[in-house]
Amino acid sequence: MLKLYVAPGSCSLASHIALEEAGAPYAAERVDLSRGAQHQPEFLAINPKSRVPALATDRGILTETPSILAYIAHAFPEADLAPMDDAFEFARLQSFNSYLCSTVHVAHAHRPRGSRWSDDPEAIESMKLKVPKNMGDCFALIETKMLAGPWVMGDRYTIADPYLFTIAGWLESDGVDPARFPKVLDHRNRMAERPAVKRVMEWLRAG
Amino acid sequence: MLKLYVAPGSCSLASHIALEEAGAPYAAERVDLSRGAQHQPEFLAINPKSRVPALATDRGILTETPSILAYIAHAFPEADLAPMDDAFEFARLQSFNSYLCSTVHVAHAHRPRGSRWSDDPEAIESMKLKVPKNMGDCFALIETKMLAGPWVMGDRYTIADPYLFTIAGWLESDGVDPARFPKVLDHRNRMAERPAVKRVMEWLRAG
Repeated sequence: MLKLYVAPGSCSLASHIALEEAGAPYAAERVDLSRGAQHQPEFLAINPKSRVPALATDRGILTETPSILAYIAHAFPEADLAPMDDAFEFARLQSFNSYLCSTVHVAHAHRPRGSRWSDDPEAIESMKLKVPKNMGDCFALIETKMLAGPWVMGDRYTIADPYLFTIAGWLESDGVDPARFPKVLDHRNRMAERPAVKRVMEWLRAG
Repeated sequence: MLKLYVAPGSCSLASHIALEEAGAPYAAERVDLSRGAQHQPEFLAINPKSRVPALATDRGILTETPSILAYIAHAFPEADLAPMDDAFEFARLQSFNSYLCSTVHVAHAHRPRGSRWSDDPEAIESMKLKVPKNMGDCFALIETKMLAGPWVMGDRYTIADPYLFTIAGWLESDGVDPARFPKVLDHRNRMAERPAVKRVMEWLRAG
């Protein structure tokens, strides 16, 4: 059985929802980031990068959200979560997820995790100041150029949707008013109504 | 025919090499980042993110290196550049490339492009100071945990190899001595001897 290592509030939510959407047999296990569990030997043996998500499979451990999401789509084809047989459409989907991980998640991370990129407390504070603009710019691009609607790729629900939902959930705490982005907001509301999303949220709340 | 938009010294090198390895019919076109061509309307119509690489195909434009690399592998299967039919192995490969784009390239970018994340000149200088440590940490992980050798995935050359080669080429300018990482250095040397890599380097030099 698959085991997904998660932390509430982190990007592991995307993979968690995707497993639930796929109807995959899996267990979720919490990693307590607030207590530094990700730096303990037990977790370093799972992911030496000290990050969630990590997905343990019977062939080994996978890390990095776009990769885990693609694995879930590939391994559970009956859930039809990605156009795996169309090189161009699959690449378009991966391009969206790659933008989320390499640019949008990174833009966000400069608020809570600036110490990754500077040891100077004033520089770390300075990075926080630019997060609302950067996240706003990213979501303006998503709103106008990338989110086809109602789902990311159009009429078809894919592994891009739980990932967008996850990162769009950080807008308010990053100082961005989501009302600026009606399509993103509609997407977020539509996602929240899906049974798979409700099940994951309930599990997380049950803590 | 495919058209790849490139800039010397940028991560577009990875896609450029992959096209050459695939024997793909393509043309490469330079985008002069030093003159701000990426912000001009002509290029914004190609990639509104103002970045290279971008790959124009007869079905539309693809951006983001991991996505372009996967497209090349998928579209030219005879070149055997990725284990497309094995969900787990393909995800492992994508995980490596995702780490390069979301963590390693980002660690590097804090030297030349700190202004993305702060408007304070002192903060931007402060970010540069941490780049050698962060890039060194990333490559220590690649050296000890991720690079199977001789190629990233082991005996099989894949789309992870030109991407690692590209980013490993930035070590010296990022203040990291590559001699710390014998496997990475061997990989870099081995890559430089490949005919496809030599052809791309020659084209870039011809300027």
